[in-house]
Amino acid sequence: MSQNKTFDVIIRCSGVATGKMRNETKIDIVEPFVESHELASDEGLFHGGDATAPPPLTYFVGGFVTCLMTQIRAFAKRLRIGLDHLNVEAEFAWKGITEPGKPYRAEPVGIRLDIEIGSASSDEQLAELVSAAKKGCFVEAIISDRIPVIHRLKTSTGWLDC
Amino acid sequence: MSQNKTFDVIIRCSGVATGKMRNETKIDIVEPFVESHELASDEGLFHGGDATAPPPLTYFVGGFVTCLMTQIRAFAKRLRIGLDHLNVEAEFAWKGITEPGKPYRAEPVGIRLDIEIGSASSDEQLAELVSAAKKGCFVEAIISDRIPVIHRLKTSTGWLDC
Repeated sequence: MSQNKTFDVIIRCSGVATGKMRNETKIDIVEPFVESHELASDEGLFHGGDATAPPPLTYFVGGFVTCLMTQIRAFAKRLRIGLDHLNVEAEFAWKGITEPGKPYRAEPVGIRLDIEIGSASSDEQLAELVSAAKKGCFVEAIISDRIPVIHRLKTSTGWLDC
Repeated sequence: MSQNKTFDVIIRCSGVATGKMRNETKIDIVEPFVESHELASDEGLFHGGDATAPPPLTYFVGGFVTCLMTQIRAFAKRLRIGLDHLNVEAEFAWKGITEPGKPYRAEPVGIRLDIEIGSASSDEQLAELVSAAKKGCFVEAIISDRIPVIHRLKTSTGWLDC
């Protein structure tokens, strides 16, 4: 217990509304290393935007899936598991609830991630790798107690929950 | 109650690990409208990547902040509140916890969003707008019961929690 150490991860974001529905952001990673990026979002014509950039939820979904994929690869090195390939198919589901005269409310339904890893390691080792990666994923750490996040690993005999 | 209606929001994502730490994704919004985008993530040299694209957490943070900003503008129209400008300054904080011999675990600490809205509407109306936007934000709907997400609205007399 006393041997546990911690490190901070701090990310700041400045956002400005520009076009009809366009937002421009500067995102600064300040801990544990320093790095900055710019991202813009927009909405399509249907939602009153100009379709100059992807919509916000695209970034959220892409950030979630690639965070898990990155941790699978980073932790594979630490666990000495060789990876030939890694593919993830994910589905994110919500409901919008409208009451007369009010703006709608958003309600999460669930997230499913189907993971296919090419490796000489056993299914048990790969399941342990996925389990470590989801605990080390900074996005999942926020979400996983709140709604069902299902991870299934593809094996020669079918899907393995992990 | 019986007047409430719901609509589905479904987003699918296919991810493939390509370069050392690079991931390439195709993200398909399938409900309530159809739209596809491609996003790539990478890590910097420090984390064994080639820095060909932003890291995953940048997308997550950008997706969260722009989702809220988009709902503030979309709901302003519904609530007939005029907006001259909208700026958000946000900070996302996590801790990584390392135990000897194990991959680290991620632990969320908190998210703070400082919101500045230029408008002729009263602070009370703007606070109501922010409150509606956070309930309608599909990213916040997943997160807000899990860790503190603090929204502060800038007013002429200081910051107003909402």
